[in-house]
Amino acid sequence: MSAVDLNSDLGESFGAWKMGMDEDVMEHITSANVACGWHAGDPEVMVKTVRTAKSKGVAVGAHPGYPDLLGFGRRSMTCTPDEVYAYTLYQVGALKSVCEAEGVELQHVKPHGAMYNQGAQNPKLAEAIVKAVKGAGEKLIMVGLANSAFETAAAALGVTFASEAFADRGYMSDGSLVPRSLPGAFIHDPKEAAVRMVKLIEEGTVPTFDGKILQLKAHSICMHGDNPAAVKMAEVVRSVLEENGVEIKNLREVLKI
Amino acid sequence: MSAVDLNSDLGESFGAWKMGMDEDVMEHITSANVACGWHAGDPEVMVKTVRTAKSKGVAVGAHPGYPDLLGFGRRSMTCTPDEVYAYTLYQVGALKSVCEAEGVELQHVKPHGAMYNQGAQNPKLAEAIVKAVKGAGEKLIMVGLANSAFETAAAALGVTFASEAFADRGYMSDGSLVPRSLPGAFIHDPKEAAVRMVKLIEEGTVPTFDGKILQLKAHSICMHGDNPAAVKMAEVVRSVLEENGVEIKNLREVLKI
Amino acid sequence: MSAVDLNSDLGESFGAWKMGMDEDVMEHITSANVACGWHAGDPEVMVKTVRTAKSKGVAVGAHPGYPDLLGFGRRSMTCTPDEVYAYTLYQVGALKSVCEAEGVELQHVKPHGAMYNQGAQNPKLAEAIVKAVKGAGEKLIMVGLANSAFETAAAALGVTFASEAFADRGYMSDGSLVPRSLPGAFIHDPKEAAVRMVKLIEEGTVPTFDGKILQLKAHSICMHGDNPAAVKMAEVVRSVLEENGVEIKNLREVLKI
Amino acid sequence: MSAVDLNSDLGESFGAWKMGMDEDVMEHITSANVACGWHAGDPEVMVKTVRTAKSKGVAVGAHPGYPDLLGFGRRSMTCTPDEVYAYTLYQVGALKSVCEAEGVELQHVKPHGAMYNQGAQNPKLAEAIVKAVKGAGEKLIMVGLANSAFETAAAALGVTFASEAFADRGYMSDGSLVPRSLPGAFIHDPKEAAVRMVKLIEEGTVPTFDGKILQLKAHSICMHGDNPAAVKMAEVVRSVLEENGVEIKNLREVLKI
Repeated sequence: MSAVDLNSDLGESFGAWKMGMDEDVMEHITSANVACGWHAGDPEVMVKTVRTAKSKGVAVGAHPGYPDLLGFGRRSMTCTPDEVYAYTLYQVGALKSVCEAEGVELQHVKPHGAMYNQGAQNPKLAEAIVKAVKGAGEKLIMVGLANSAFETAAAALGVTFASEAFADRGYMSDGSLVPRSLPGAFIHDPKEAAVRMVKLIEEGTVPTFDGKILQLKAHSICMHGDNPAAVKMAEVVRSVLEENGVEIKNLREVLKI
Repeated sequence: MSAVDLNSDLGESFGAWKMGMDEDVMEHITSANVACGWHAGDPEVMVKTVRTAKSKGVAVGAHPGYPDLLGFGRRSMTCTPDEVYAYTLYQVGALKSVCEAEGVELQHVKPHGAMYNQGAQNPKLAEAIVKAVKGAGEKLIMVGLANSAFETAAAALGVTFASEAFADRGYMSDGSLVPRSLPGAFIHDPKEAAVRMVKLIEEGTVPTFDGKILQLKAHSICMHGDNPAAVKMAEVVRSVLEENGVEIKNLREVLKI
Repeated sequence: MSAVDLNSDLGESFGAWKMGMDEDVMEHITSANVACGWHAGDPEVMVKTVRTAKSKGVAVGAHPGYPDLLGFGRRSMTCTPDEVYAYTLYQVGALKSVCEAEGVELQHVKPHGAMYNQGAQNPKLAEAIVKAVKGAGEKLIMVGLANSAFETAAAALGVTFASEAFADRGYMSDGSLVPRSLPGAFIHDPKEAAVRMVKLIEEGTVPTFDGKILQLKAHSICMHGDNPAAVKMAEVVRSVLEENGVEIKNLREVLKI
Repeated sequence: MSAVDLNSDLGESFGAWKMGMDEDVMEHITSANVACGWHAGDPEVMVKTVRTAKSKGVAVGAHPGYPDLLGFGRRSMTCTPDEVYAYTLYQVGALKSVCEAEGVELQHVKPHGAMYNQGAQNPKLAEAIVKAVKGAGEKLIMVGLANSAFETAAAALGVTFASEAFADRGYMSDGSLVPRSLPGAFIHDPKEAAVRMVKLIEEGTVPTFDGKILQLKAHSICMHGDNPAAVKMAEVVRSVLEENGVEIKNLREVLKI
């Protein structure tokens, strides 16, 4: 029987500012990517998010980003590999201690925003990030785009890699996402997204923007939790997957490690 | 034979700004308190400082501070215990992962500046800080002012406590430091400072500002490394201590844990 | 005929985080206190808020705060008068240029949170803040608590001062606000708040927490805009004031300068 | 008789961190580009730097940068023109109020680091920056690389433009600087730099890296002040220019506005 993890970016509130429907979306996912205070989140939010995840049986991962709170970590920055190595190690370590203090084992690391996008394409950055993940804990799983520089770097450094797919995004024939500016960028209908994901998990394929079939392997599906429609999509995708016999469990269980 | 640790606040450079003569002072000390990026330091500086400490056989501790880079963590802030708990856990965890990645075991935690001063006097803050230290690692040593709220909180929570004395500061009869605004606040002569420290370690006493004798226990002596005179004092204090048969070794060794 | 200004703290969104119902509450007020990027707000938010205020005929003031984004500027900090002078000048100047670029004249300055509270009680801080206001523009109005150190400092430095009252807060006999921890701290009923404000503007008195009558002079009433109930209160207070013949106009008009 | 301005980036200390030999280099220059707290500098440093410039008769300009204190504003970031407009307006306004409070008229604006480099090549960014300069004050001079997008944008928006040359940098035939990684990137000999600058001011030419002659117009020459050798070069360049009959005066005087 096939199985998949459902992940979501959470813990993105900061100080007096609230963001995301964390408690609601955690009802439907199995892994939480918790912001580490650089592009979003703060230490108190991290503690609260880890506690909520623990109480709901959701696995916890670190979601490190660039030092760009004002830009939510979404702006490309020309950081050196040494800088990115240190930034990742710092943020993962901060969350790891929060987890340890709360009796939770940190499961994975998934970079955020521009760090995710730049790292997926740049072998030196990917290597720096994976090296930091390895340094922060031998058992940590590196999560990233399938077939990206992250996968190559993880293989080279002996770090377990898990690839993710996006339930609400259209794909190009080369495996990249349809740019946000184009019409087919987003799948808005939860049912349609769910059916795509069933096909992806069962057959390893997803239809592309230009009418082709893309071979794609995903250990995890990325969901959103920042608005009611997103939470609804997570709920629908999960229940349709389960109705089709796909087991929903966290990354360690999916990867059997 | 008596023994003492020598500690110094290091890793206080930030980005393009250099601060401190870290490499020089590390020749004379046994424990480094490494800034964690909030009041000073940054992830790259942390990595470099841990590497330097490792190469010189200096033990590494975390030096967490308030979120006040502009004020160097020296300004009192009315943070809640929950905030201070989370801030400490975050910073200690960040440095701990840097240490683990570099093959170094984190030895201790010593709060910085206003967090040190407010925590030393406020039982709730002290408890929050010590709770974070315990959460970040069962074997971590809490370093603070002798007879302070830190010592009480550490005893209550079962955390090993190490007290520190200041080589270059005058003491009041109640064990507090002579305020910086008064004449006897600083000991400028390295020889005089060294002789005071020999007496402190061998007899457990230090002469006070007003001509009395203060009973004081110190597992560690705090030295500075921000200018040539400070480095010279560290060198002189160490050699005079050694000449008088005091062993200079790190906190774990002094505490025999 | 009596007149009063209605002010509200706005422009408190930051980067990806939204806060406040600025457009809604601007329908009911005459002066906006715009956050300047330190405790809240950012340059783009400042530009947008000034444009919205201009389009709605709402006067603009600067709302400077402490360098404490994480704590929303609500935590007391032991800054020196020189620091507070420079911080205020910096933030007021930033907003003033935004106003000039958008064809709006900056009307006033009202400190935020802990800067407001500490300045109201500390003559040296109040003097530093008022000196910065004067330095940033001869015509700027200083807004603060009636009978506070701000009023004294403004008189001494020749800066026009406007006092404000709080529609939704209970008062003690000494003119201070009922602490948030006590039952009578907040007036929740818009009608009750409105009636209190009519009495305040027409008679210069407000009933206190302990059943007495406080003499109070207010050029402006502070309203909130962070939730629908707050916006509703602003609407009700304004309409009840107008029904009772009180003119609602901005500070320059109220002060006739 | 020919004339030129000498400018230098100053006020780059931050909080407890010192940077630059500001007082020394101000003996030799006529215009100071003062950091505005984003990539370097802080409000107190700005106040002190403006006071020092005033006392030495040096004109003051704003030196805005990206929101990247950790990277000293040297890392490219993909900010939108709206963001860069707001960031520039904010920083220039902050310094302008400091100047007004201190009785100094702000003379110019010169972007820093990555904002300078990206703006020089990107017409949309250049336009956003020049628009902010214009918004902050009709009389402000925009300073940038000769023949860059800044010059075009300034002409289009009716803002006075001043071009600058670099005394210690080699030039390519296309007017760009020799990349820092190549041998001819830097001119280390003060005399050589001085002779090159005399030729530049008198004849409007500078020899290039590959042995050609570049036509170049400069209203100002950029000097450094971060180390004794840089200060020495500023001194030598100035005296050699004066010996050759070039008048050294600030930008307003050079441009006769």
